[in-house]
Amino acid sequence: MVKAAARQPVPARRADAERNIAAILEAATRLLSADPAASVADIAKAAGVGRVTLYGHFPSREALVDAVLDHTVGLADAVLEDPALDKAPAPEAMAKLLHSSWEILDRHRRLFLAADRVLPTERIREHHDRPLRRVERLIARGRQDGDFRGDLPLPWLVTTFFSIIHSAAQERETGRLAADEVEQVLIKTMLSLLSPAAGSGPA
Amino acid sequence: MVKAAARQPVPARRADAERNIAAILEAATRLLSADPAASVADIAKAAGVGRVTLYGHFPSREALVDAVLDHTVGLADAVLEDPALDKAPAPEAMAKLLHSSWEILDRHRRLFLAADRVLPTERIREHHDRPLRRVERLIARGRQDGDFRGDLPLPWLVTTFFSIIHSAAQERETGRLAADEVEQVLIKTMLSLLSPAAGSGPA
Repeated sequence: MVKAAARQPVPARRADAERNIAAILEAATRLLSADPAASVADIAKAAGVGRVTLYGHFPSREALVDAVLDHTVGLADAVLEDPALDKAPAPEAMAKLLHSSWEILDRHRRLFLAADRVLPTERIREHHDRPLRRVERLIARGRQDGDFRGDLPLPWLVTTFFSIIHSAAQERETGRLAADEVEQVLIKTMLSLLSPAAGSGPA
Repeated sequence: MVKAAARQPVPARRADAERNIAAILEAATRLLSADPAASVADIAKAAGVGRVTLYGHFPSREALVDAVLDHTVGLADAVLEDPALDKAPAPEAMAKLLHSSWEILDRHRRLFLAADRVLPTERIREHHDRPLRRVERLIARGRQDGDFRGDLPLPWLVTTFFSIIHSAAQERETGRLAADEVEQVLIKTMLSLLSPAAGSGPA
């Protein structure tokens, strides 16, 4: 028996593991999006796996939340793929990018709050590396075109995008910002920040 | 003996406890400011108390970091007390407030990073309630004077102050912002955000 088990083909085991991982990520995304305090036990139950199996793949709540964030940001980044971002005037493209980014973040707002409880901000930011590269490219183009300011470091302007949109998620959750005002507030805030400062425009 | 111990006057015990708490907070502030990953065991040792005593006052790392943050922000808020803030024109007062706030935050930057690892952002923000009320009063005055924009919600502008100055602490720690550029970057960023938008100034 032991020998037969040992001979079980590796691909089948791997397929099992991958199915379990996918089920856990799906359940974790769903439960944490509804309640950032959802327990690992409830996530295992919803995924139809035992806690031992879950902990075999994700040894801590932190590891699980980290994986869920990675998975979700990956999907979100694909949604942000939009050829118009490379063509429209930069301020208009920035408004579009904020609209799409907020739509995705708002849908997964509680997931972000769950991540914020167990992961350092810097780690959350690392997960956003790919979408933030889109932001960086767009701001760089706006600077070349003279639509955006050139007197603040580019990485700092990218950081303010990350920081402002994530602050908005928290403001929305605490009720300090109403659902129907967030998008306009984000667009106004970011465009004010990016406008060439008085006297710092193209010479 | 037991009876004598039981009769030990309560004030003496309370004085002991207060001395221990003060020593723990002092050691925790010092060690976490040097290394946000400093262990609770090392903090107890530096404070000259046993781990059992430390855990008696602060049952978890989270509780200890929370108390250190509360203590430090309280001291910082006293430093921000500056009559000039109520008299200088609002943009000038805002630059002063950013200068002083950054000076304090930079000194305790790693403490903030330690807090960011174990506390949700919303909790960190709650600790900043008192200094943020100064920011709020100043922005409100700038709006009345027509120096600051009135087309974005006041609580949102206060949030951007919190979020931008804390982002700067992270950028500084990761090396994305150089020590000598932070203050000017913060002042430019915040004043751009607060300037009356083109066409939205006093009618």
